[in-house]
Amino acid sequence: MGSDAREACAVFGVFAPERDVSRITYYSLFALQHRGQESSGIAVATDKHIICYKEMGLVQQVFNESILRMLKGHAAIGHNRYSTTGSSTLANAQPVLFEGCAGDGRAFALAHNGNMVNTAELAAEVSRLGLSPRASTDTEMIGLLLEHGCREKPFAEALVEILERASGAYSLVVLTTDALYAVRDPLAIRPLALGRFPEGYVVASESAAFAIVGGEHLREVEPGEIVRIGADGLSSHRFATGQWRNCMFEYFYFCRPDSILRGKEVYSMRIEMGRALAREAPVDADIVVPVPDSGMPAAIGYAEESGVPYHEALIKNRYVGRTFIEPLQAQRELGVRMKLNPLREVIAGKRVILVDDSIVRGSTSREIVRMLRQAGAREVHFRISSPPIRYPCYYGIDFGTYEELIAANLSVEEIARRLGCDSLHYLSLEQVVAATGLPREEFCLACFNDERPIPLREQMKISKFVLEKQ
Amino acid sequence: MGSDAREACAVFGVFAPERDVSRITYYSLFALQHRGQESSGIAVATDKHIICYKEMGLVQQVFNESILRMLKGHAAIGHNRYSTTGSSTLANAQPVLFEGCAGDGRAFALAHNGNMVNTAELAAEVSRLGLSPRASTDTEMIGLLLEHGCREKPFAEALVEILERASGAYSLVVLTTDALYAVRDPLAIRPLALGRFPEGYVVASESAAFAIVGGEHLREVEPGEIVRIGADGLSSHRFATGQWRNCMFEYFYFCRPDSILRGKEVYSMRIEMGRALAREAPVDADIVVPVPDSGMPAAIGYAEESGVPYHEALIKNRYVGRTFIEPLQAQRELGVRMKLNPLREVIAGKRVILVDDSIVRGSTSREIVRMLRQAGAREVHFRISSPPIRYPCYYGIDFGTYEELIAANLSVEEIARRLGCDSLHYLSLEQVVAATGLPREEFCLACFNDERPIPLREQMKISKFVLEKQ
Amino acid sequence: MGSDAREACAVFGVFAPERDVSRITYYSLFALQHRGQESSGIAVATDKHIICYKEMGLVQQVFNESILRMLKGHAAIGHNRYSTTGSSTLANAQPVLFEGCAGDGRAFALAHNGNMVNTAELAAEVSRLGLSPRASTDTEMIGLLLEHGCREKPFAEALVEILERASGAYSLVVLTTDALYAVRDPLAIRPLALGRFPEGYVVASESAAFAIVGGEHLREVEPGEIVRIGADGLSSHRFATGQWRNCMFEYFYFCRPDSILRGKEVYSMRIEMGRALAREAPVDADIVVPVPDSGMPAAIGYAEESGVPYHEALIKNRYVGRTFIEPLQAQRELGVRMKLNPLREVIAGKRVILVDDSIVRGSTSREIVRMLRQAGAREVHFRISSPPIRYPCYYGIDFGTYEELIAANLSVEEIARRLGCDSLHYLSLEQVVAATGLPREEFCLACFNDERPIPLREQMKISKFVLEKQ
Amino acid sequence: MGSDAREACAVFGVFAPERDVSRITYYSLFALQHRGQESSGIAVATDKHIICYKEMGLVQQVFNESILRMLKGHAAIGHNRYSTTGSSTLANAQPVLFEGCAGDGRAFALAHNGNMVNTAELAAEVSRLGLSPRASTDTEMIGLLLEHGCREKPFAEALVEILERASGAYSLVVLTTDALYAVRDPLAIRPLALGRFPEGYVVASESAAFAIVGGEHLREVEPGEIVRIGADGLSSHRFATGQWRNCMFEYFYFCRPDSILRGKEVYSMRIEMGRALAREAPVDADIVVPVPDSGMPAAIGYAEESGVPYHEALIKNRYVGRTFIEPLQAQRELGVRMKLNPLREVIAGKRVILVDDSIVRGSTSREIVRMLRQAGAREVHFRISSPPIRYPCYYGIDFGTYEELIAANLSVEEIARRLGCDSLHYLSLEQVVAATGLPREEFCLACFNDERPIPLREQMKISKFVLEKQ
Repeated sequence: MGSDAREACAVFGVFAPERDVSRITYYSLFALQHRGQESSGIAVATDKHIICYKEMGLVQQVFNESILRMLKGHAAIGHNRYSTTGSSTLANAQPVLFEGCAGDGRAFALAHNGNMVNTAELAAEVSRLGLSPRASTDTEMIGLLLEHGCREKPFAEALVEILERASGAYSLVVLTTDALYAVRDPLAIRPLALGRFPEGYVVASESAAFAIVGGEHLREVEPGEIVRIGADGLSSHRFATGQWRNCMFEYFYFCRPDSILRGKEVYSMRIEMGRALAREAPVDADIVVPVPDSGMPAAIGYAEESGVPYHEALIKNRYVGRTFIEPLQAQRELGVRMKLNPLREVIAGKRVILVDDSIVRGSTSREIVRMLRQAGAREVHFRISSPPIRYPCYYGIDFGTYEELIAANLSVEEIARRLGCDSLHYLSLEQVVAATGLPREEFCLACFNDERPIPLREQMKISKFVLEKQ
Repeated sequence: MGSDAREACAVFGVFAPERDVSRITYYSLFALQHRGQESSGIAVATDKHIICYKEMGLVQQVFNESILRMLKGHAAIGHNRYSTTGSSTLANAQPVLFEGCAGDGRAFALAHNGNMVNTAELAAEVSRLGLSPRASTDTEMIGLLLEHGCREKPFAEALVEILERASGAYSLVVLTTDALYAVRDPLAIRPLALGRFPEGYVVASESAAFAIVGGEHLREVEPGEIVRIGADGLSSHRFATGQWRNCMFEYFYFCRPDSILRGKEVYSMRIEMGRALAREAPVDADIVVPVPDSGMPAAIGYAEESGVPYHEALIKNRYVGRTFIEPLQAQRELGVRMKLNPLREVIAGKRVILVDDSIVRGSTSREIVRMLRQAGAREVHFRISSPPIRYPCYYGIDFGTYEELIAANLSVEEIARRLGCDSLHYLSLEQVVAATGLPREEFCLACFNDERPIPLREQMKISKFVLEKQ
Repeated sequence: MGSDAREACAVFGVFAPERDVSRITYYSLFALQHRGQESSGIAVATDKHIICYKEMGLVQQVFNESILRMLKGHAAIGHNRYSTTGSSTLANAQPVLFEGCAGDGRAFALAHNGNMVNTAELAAEVSRLGLSPRASTDTEMIGLLLEHGCREKPFAEALVEILERASGAYSLVVLTTDALYAVRDPLAIRPLALGRFPEGYVVASESAAFAIVGGEHLREVEPGEIVRIGADGLSSHRFATGQWRNCMFEYFYFCRPDSILRGKEVYSMRIEMGRALAREAPVDADIVVPVPDSGMPAAIGYAEESGVPYHEALIKNRYVGRTFIEPLQAQRELGVRMKLNPLREVIAGKRVILVDDSIVRGSTSREIVRMLRQAGAREVHFRISSPPIRYPCYYGIDFGTYEELIAANLSVEEIARRLGCDSLHYLSLEQVVAATGLPREEFCLACFNDERPIPLREQMKISKFVLEKQ
Repeated sequence: MGSDAREACAVFGVFAPERDVSRITYYSLFALQHRGQESSGIAVATDKHIICYKEMGLVQQVFNESILRMLKGHAAIGHNRYSTTGSSTLANAQPVLFEGCAGDGRAFALAHNGNMVNTAELAAEVSRLGLSPRASTDTEMIGLLLEHGCREKPFAEALVEILERASGAYSLVVLTTDALYAVRDPLAIRPLALGRFPEGYVVASESAAFAIVGGEHLREVEPGEIVRIGADGLSSHRFATGQWRNCMFEYFYFCRPDSILRGKEVYSMRIEMGRALAREAPVDADIVVPVPDSGMPAAIGYAEESGVPYHEALIKNRYVGRTFIEPLQAQRELGVRMKLNPLREVIAGKRVILVDDSIVRGSTSREIVRMLRQAGAREVHFRISSPPIRYPCYYGIDFGTYEELIAANLSVEEIARRLGCDSLHYLSLEQVVAATGLPREEFCLACFNDERPIPLREQMKISKFVLEKQ
């Protein structure tokens, strides 16, 4: 998908009094860096306090050994952020610390992936209660309401109460001085996995974070489930009678290929999507070339199924990261040039099947097609391992507005013309679903078909909120 | 090759009064980041001065927009360093600025990839002349002698004189207030490419740096050639009747696959090495898996030739970089775990052909084999697209000592046992050479066969120098 | 005056091709640190370019040896900022670089101390011309107009033209690739001194900056004068028939005691103010105590004239600087406590004459009086070496609004009660003027008597502008 | 004394579960900044852990709000360092954390002002026990022995044991998870004060640190006393039958004038030294001028006693701090020029009595005398409020070696000639002692008369150690 779409966030949590919990969180956030590069933070619980450190930047830039050594405790949560709502400042970084009732040992920290759809409602409640938000995020609203609620009732009770009022797609980790809570929204739209290692438990947006610390994948946190991990072990509570509505984007794009979703490695599903794509849209060509890194598994699957040789003919600079250096003026397409360089000898004179997982705005895709042509490609056949994205997402993924979504405004033929490719095919929704091995009704497919899993009254609020955001 | 071997440095130069030379250098150094991650620096020439900025860290960490905007001029050189001699401090970072005769407009800056083999001799000369080195590098010695020499004779003449006395494998860029010089050693052991774009010339360790700024590859700087680029264009001078003795390591490991060596893309040569490997050492197996990223092209070639399906079953964290965080204690193999994660579903129960470009010390390779076994691999057949490295390199690549080189001490069978793989095969020297399409005598193959391209008397000095270094 | 009032900015310029101009600027800005601690910057001219570096923070925090070494050229300007208009961000830091016509060698940088009073008019002109300001400062408006003007006429001519339109109290330094310009407003409200050393010229807000680099004070830049310093030496031009209207605040508070104003050291004038204060308001007491550091000279003068022993009984922490650490909650008066500590043995049981140069808002003064009482002072007689400040300043000093000025709202007796002192006396305007040795009509005394040196029509604009600023 | 002598360190400790202990420590270290500017650190105790943060630089540079907020706990210690032994690196910064038996809740941190004189002996013991020092400081040796000792016996017992073996001049603060210990050496050479505020206790090198946080000075920690502060309050233990041998340097130079030593404010003692100096060495002159800041109180005392007018005619830059910028080449005396600027009008034609507290190497003093002459002083009479320093100190103050001490090698007349002054007088030892109001035998005066309070056998070891250090 190149750099067109903005990714969601990563959340992580660990409860393991015998282990160095901040170091475990550090390495796990590093493994989940792909889900957010704007800011990173870790909060740690001691017997009486929660301490927290967060900064703008990549995990490796934010933390150093001195900082990690200060983060001592028996449990921790962590977060990598890519802003979907609120502006890009440290004030919006997570985890967020709430100390209002610190004297009672009720300080807590909270980190969050996804989007509340009734933020305006929550903000109104916050305002009604006379609470003072320090930032404009969902996280701040939920935290303030929780801070207020837990003054009068047990923490877990206050948490359930606010969850019953919050509506949206989210995965939440909450750290108190005595427990770690992991919460998944009633439709399980955003991912959240539970793992274990000899001395404790871990939760993470993706199971790939477990391997780096020697943990083992147990299961997904279920729709509408609160998992609480404390000194007395793990307990589970359902605050809603949920059902599975997983975001399909995680399956074909967001998640690392080595993460497990609903019991199956994502890589294998993507290989299968590539195979299906070869069957659905075969083409007489010389080489199959992935758009790195996201198109790789589908391209391998396509090549395998079609028998056309696979070549990584777009070389990616290994050292990626956020840069704040202005581009060279003369290089319109430098954004892509900085990341990718075509192999002329491999491409020149060839009929190329270019494989990617999706197209959002299409600008990067167009530059890549142009790059292939300049390198001498005789034909460029573009194959996408997902259906056209026609509708914005209000559940945590920032595609932008209708205007920006190329498939919201153009037919497949028009898109092909716009991108400058000889042919273009999107994998059918049926085949994408089939590749996952799960029933169609267990997915949120709203960005493809506008069938929203969250009911209408809420939807209107969403739209309003999003429009205000623009 | 994983992380076993230490890479050489990158040099870059640009002469283009109409362009933003420091920005061009920045993006080029970014493209050459793989050749050195310890420090980075840029020097720029104005009419009267050379100004220079360098710091420890990656290109993206060292420079910011404020710094780049201060680096204004008509020509620039840049450098990424991985120390091969001298310790890892800012004092040893490059380019090095020499201002001794700044009043005469003879300030210059110098950057260098490779190793002088007669450093002791040069240091003796420096000491005899009463000059005061600020650091222990070759670069400092050459610079001091040049600074001294150019007081009495024209700069180019002084440069030739010192080059005639310096012995070793090096690529050198020198920046004066009026010209950019690019120098390649008489055996062209280290790489150096020349490129052009509408408004000027560029030189770089690798041609892959040209694409990022819209430049075009012209040719290699030739053995014993000095290229001078000034306001009056490009001129060339031979200070030695050189011959080609290219370092083979650049062909199968160091260079980016999209760089051109002797007129041919490196990727294609590596695909051919993989194919040759499949012919030389076929094995009945289920999947071909590369060690990312270095083993990728050979693995694709192997898969293509053998018909065994290709799978990128070791997932690499996209966000690599130098970390100074201590590892988790319980994870002995974390160094590898932090970078790679195996796909269990793909590997479990399979007979795996694991392909890498080379083995140096073998510790990373052993961890990878173990990782595959833990993921359920039934068999692991290791295939290496180069011959065993049996001898240290004294020409700019830090393999370490004999003791550290696994193939200097063990037979192939012993290595296989040590690594824990079911079979192991190194590609024959003949086939590696054949894959490049160049004659065998145009390579330095000393690390494989101890045939040193630099004569004996010098060799002894080298050995002595290296022993002192340990 | 303690920390009640906000200081103006410092400007500096040097033209000295044989010297290290950025280092000279660095040390001079360091000597002028008291005039602004928010940001610091240096711009340097080479034959073709102006390069500039600026950051938030103190001079010693902003620059390091690496940065200074990049700032090579034949002339430089520098600036320390304390914002009087515009918000406190890097975007508002100075010098400001204008490169619009860089190709013609007409890049320039500009730094500024003071306030334009017709900013709205200038902004309207900027808008009319379709220019795009990057910041909200006067400096940006003047620079944009100058950048626009010098496209069609010689630089000096364009400069004069804009100066004829700009109205206000300012000292301006402008750096082009071939000259340094120093400009003083037609009423010479803000200070600007000219100095010389063997190899070149220097200009600075205060002459105390010259000593640190071995320069010699020549004279003041005169009202409405443009001094131009280039390779051909110094030339002078009058763009307005100015008259002296020096800000009296510089005489009794802002300037370093070792600076020279109108040919006389400031320290001596302040000693004389203290003596006059002792004559005007004698009191039977045991010790004279200055509010450090600003009240020191007047207190010495008071003690000398009165014969009452002088004691520095309020100890100041030597290590001052901007802190971003939140205060201890329980310490309401910590702002003062962090800076001053009373000597109990010296103060206990004594009748104290406390001397300061001025009172602005009065909050710090009140804390100091309270501190003396807590330390056991039997009586506290407050003596101020300037008259009550009753009116806001629109010429570069940020007293805030009428509401904040204690003397705008209370009588001297009421102020004494508010501060909690046994007696309070402000030195009469006549005596302050007399201590300077200059005629009363050569000062701007608007903050004492509302007699504004800039005519009425403009004043209204000023008021409007200021009100908008609140 | 100008910048000739190197200062000792500052230690601080607080036990106050109800207060923000890290913020209290921050402000206190800020008040003690004059005792060490090389590095700063704070360690905080939670129920189970000690966490510590330290960096090179001033207190205000080392800490920011994010760091302080991580340092939560019920007790804290802090340290500012100026290295007297060991090199200037972060590895030698304090507090030092020891976590060897962290599992048992026996982690502790340690900070230290002074010098162990039997470091070699301690190091031998460390080596004999097979312990691995991470640094070369006394603190590390004591900490390692304590860490080893407390495995087998109660912490306080282990502490006493190691104190009985350590010999030297030191003030020590030790933080465990349940207590704060403050220890003073058996001769009380280095200072250590005990204070109290409503919610807890504080200890500090100087009582001036108490005021900043609203604390009250209680008493000195006594010779050979261990004070323990825990949840159950304060208890005291004597590990040695000590006697007072206070370092006289603290009285006339090191301590802030607002600190209390043995019940009396230091300022008053220094005023008295100045008065005695006026009586002992009167001179017919026009003004008394202090060397700021250290000579100020004695100069005020001298002026008061002699009736000669006092003037602060050497203006000091308020913004001091460590700079790493190279000086301007042409300014040999820039070190002094950067800090001081003479008032020409005040000095010209005058006979000046220059007052300072001490002379160590004399280089700064010479520059100041020269500066006064250049400013037109007719005569310069130098008066020093302490006797000549003839012998190195082995108890925590770094005067350097015999060779560097001007009075170790020259007579007073020779020193006067070397400094270029018209007359020079050092206050007699009798008068210095008299000004303190304490008996002579309660001081360590070794630097004046070589009478060492620690017996001979140890002295030899000291000498040996120090010689090795050079």
